[in-house]
This record gives sequence, C-alpha cells and structure tokens, in this order.
Amino acid sequence: MKYTVITGASSGIGYATALAFASRGKNLILAARRQDKLEQLKVEIAKINQHLDVIVKSVDLSVAENAHTFYESLKNYEIETWINNAGFGNFASVGEHNLKKIQSMLHLNIEALTILSSLFVRDYENVDGTQLINVSSAAGYTLISNFVTYSSTKFYVSAFTEGLAQELQSRGSKMKAKVLAPAVTETEFEKHSLDLNEFQYEGQVPKFHTSKEMAGFMLNLYDSDKTVGIVDESTYEFHLKEPIFPFREGTKKASTAP
Amino acid sequence: MKYTVITGASSGIGYATALAFASRGKNLILAARRQDKLEQLKVEIAKINQHLDVIVKSVDLSVAENAHTFYESLKNYEIETWINNAGFGNFASVGEHNLKKIQSMLHLNIEALTILSSLFVRDYENVDGTQLINVSSAAGYTLISNFVTYSSTKFYVSAFTEGLAQELQSRGSKMKAKVLAPAVTETEFEKHSLDLNEFQYEGQVPKFHTSKEMAGFMLNLYDSDKTVGIVDESTYEFHLKEPIFPFREGTKKASTAP
Repeated sequence: MKYTVITGASSGIGYATALAFASRGKNLILAARRQDKLEQLKVEIAKINQHLDVIVKSVDLSVAENAHTFYESLKNYEIETWINNAGFGNFASVGEHNLKKIQSMLHLNIEALTILSSLFVRDYENVDGTQLINVSSAAGYTLISNFVTYSSTKFYVSAFTEGLAQELQSRGSKMKAKVLAPAVTETEFEKHSLDLNEFQYEGQVPKFHTSKEMAGFMLNLYDSDKTVGIVDESTYEFHLKEPIFPFREGTKKASTAP
Repeated sequence: MKYTVITGASSGIGYATALAFASRGKNLILAARRQDKLEQLKVEIAKINQHLDVIVKSVDLSVAENAHTFYESLKNYEIETWINNAGFGNFASVGEHNLKKIQSMLHLNIEALTILSSLFVRDYENVDGTQLINVSSAAGYTLISNFVTYSSTKFYVSAFTEGLAQELQSRGSKMKAKVLAPAVTETEFEKHSLDLNEFQYEGQVPKFHTSKEMAGFMLNLYDSDKTVGIVDESTYEFHLKEPIFPFREGTKKASTAP
C-alpha cells in the first residue's frame, strides 16, 4: 500500500490538496501542528472515499529535530509522493524584523523542507513513480519589497527543487522533483504574514485563487512531465514550465565549487 | 571612531578583505572561530598600519544564538561597514547529504547572515555612508549539480541582499546593501566542501582567483554605486551590475503576499 505525504495539511493549499489526492484514490499521511483540523479533514476524506487509509500526524516542523523524528516515524510506510507544503510568510521590512518569527520561518520554509527532501531522495530516488513536490511561491522567482525575507526563503525552495530535479535527471534517477509556485491564494497565509486574527480576501485582494483551484493545479503538475507549475502574477494563469533558473553540470569536483 | 566588521576573517576572502580595508585605513572588528588565526591577522594588519584599532572576536556563527550575542557584544562600537563573509560549501548530491553538515551550513550561510543583516539594518539604516556587503557566489545565480544545496543557500543570499538593497532605496534609506558573487577563489573552501585535509588549486582547477584578487574586487564594489559584484564563470572577468533577479514593489499589504 502506497501513501502520499502532505505537510501543512490542516488548512489552505495543503488541506485542499489532501482532498484532491483523495479523489484520485490515494492513501494519505497528513501532517500539521493542529490535530483537531487533521481529524476534521479525515472525516471529509472518508466522505469522498471510505476505503482510503488516512494517517494523521501532529508535528511542529519549525523545529528541525521534529522533521527527523517525523520522517523516522514513517519508516514502515511505502511512500509514493511527498509534498512539502508547510510554510508561512512575514510581512515586514528587513529593519523591522521580529527575529523570533523570522528564524522560525527559516527553520520551517528552508530547513525542514531540506531535511525531509534529502531523506526522501535518499530512500526513494530509484523507486519508479515517486514524486517530490515542494511548494514555493511566485515570490520565489520575483522579489517583493517588504516581503523580501519570505521571498528569499522561496528563492531557496525554487532553486533547491529545480537543482534537485535536474540532478535526478542527469543521474538517470526514477524520482521526479517539482516546484509549485502559487500567487495569492485564499488560505490562512495573509493572516499569519500580517499577524492578524482574521483576513478577508474577497474585496481586499484584487486577484487570487481559491485553495481548491491551486490543488487542481497541483494535480496538473503531478500529472505533467514539467518541473515547475507557476502562476503568472499579472494574469493569474497557470503555466507548466521547464526549470527557470540557470543550471550547469559540475564537470568535476574541483572545478565546480565557487 | 568607526569600524568595519568582517565575519569569517580567519582565512580566504575574509582574511584578504581585512588586509584590503586596513590598507584603506579602516579600523576593524574581525570574527571567526579560530582565535589564533585572527591574532596572526592582527599582527599582519599592524605591519600595514600600526594606528588602526583591530578587535578580534572568536565566535561560531553556525549557532544562531551566537549571532545574537556577537551582535550585542558590539553595541558600544560605531559600525560603518558590515561584511557577512562567513560561509561554507558542501559537495554532494541531495540523496547523499550529511544532514548534520547541511543543517550547519543552513544556519551559517542563511540564518546567521539574516540575523546579523536584520540587526545592522535596524540600527544603521539611516546612518550616512553605511554599507552591508553579503558574500554570495556565482553559484547563487547559476545552479550547479552535486552542489545544489550550497548553491541554493547562495540563491537565498543573493535574493535577500538584492531585495534589501531595493527596499532600502525605495524607502530613501542611507544604507547601501550589496552582493559579492565570487567564482572559484583560492581559499579553504574546496577543502571544506570536499571534506579533505588539503586541497591544491594550482593544476587542479582550470580557472580561479586568489583571495587577494577577490578582496580587490570587494573594494571596487565598496567604492561603486552598483548593487552586485559578480565574477563571470566563463571568462573570470569582474562585473559590477544592477540587481539581477526580478523585483516588484508590494503595492499594498493585502496584494503583496503570494
């Protein structure tokens, strides 16, 4: 029995992606901090398909050690797809950083994603049909003022995942690595970025996708041979693309290390 | 009395940059783990200009808490220029990661740099003549296989620093932020990336700069109005450039957070 792992599944794109993969008949391992939200999601999934096996795991991935123990806890499951979706943003100029929040963002958006990606690649690189999908952002390709540090974490995610995708391809590995780069999506993201209790998208944001629309695009990316699924920030159209950043093979160890 | 802070000053580009700023008559605060190397450097600096004040600080910046205490320890000094040069690389495919080393690299290359940059901007954003120079890499603009994770840390550094530079400019701030992006430079870098005890550049690497050449280019970047000082990986020519990554202003809070 194979499973799809989704982190940050308690709300937003992660929650909607769980429903989308359930509708494809995929067994799920769902991770997030909030156990109650995951239990609610499990009930919703049973309405779609009561035969699916759904495992829920309450874990705070902004603590690096938890990323290791979470991965270890899954060693008896066979994983087909791993989706690193957990992440949050912060709206502030660099001089106005709340460093506690910023460091937590670096740990979740970058460190946990790197640990979980590395361990999944280590174990599944040569298993047919496996995919790693990392959720970046349109802001992981275009910097935004007063959003620079979040945007830079997503540049890391885009670069790391595109680089991995090409490394896997040049090694002839069976795993595919892909980047999803949403623009504004109706989730709990703005609330967390702005440190608000509530945030209403309709009427305040000129353009956005619903989480369900983004989960649909996630499935399109999953089904395609392309590496990057990105939302055009001006038209809000979905585009499936080849890797965007420049890339070169390291020809030999000594000459590849600037 | 004003100071130039240089992290990772015990060897390589940091060491050579300390000598270059000393030759410009700048007082220095030099940080690295190895106290003995910093003391040797202090002796070399005294030969260039015995009137300079040189403070040495032994600190391991791969531990986030140390970045905070290091910054706090400087609160009685007036800082003119801050150079985040400390960093290291790792040569491995993603599936072959030594995660202890990788996490340490994320903490040093990304987290410490973000903490120190944020605190310096918080305190000096509107002080005339201040500069923040972050050392990235040509690999922070072009991904390299088997070097993907290091390269991605440098994508973060390039993005963060370019974004900050433009944010400072649009706020009308007095501080300038700049990115130095070396290609292969004769330092202790290869040795650490390849986990070797020794590494000889001459004869093994087709093209490289000496640390002294890179320190000269660091001064050119310091003197210029451009944001990026980058080495062309094919010609090894030095180029001073405007920011390279796409950037847009966040027009209002609600619409800027994809």
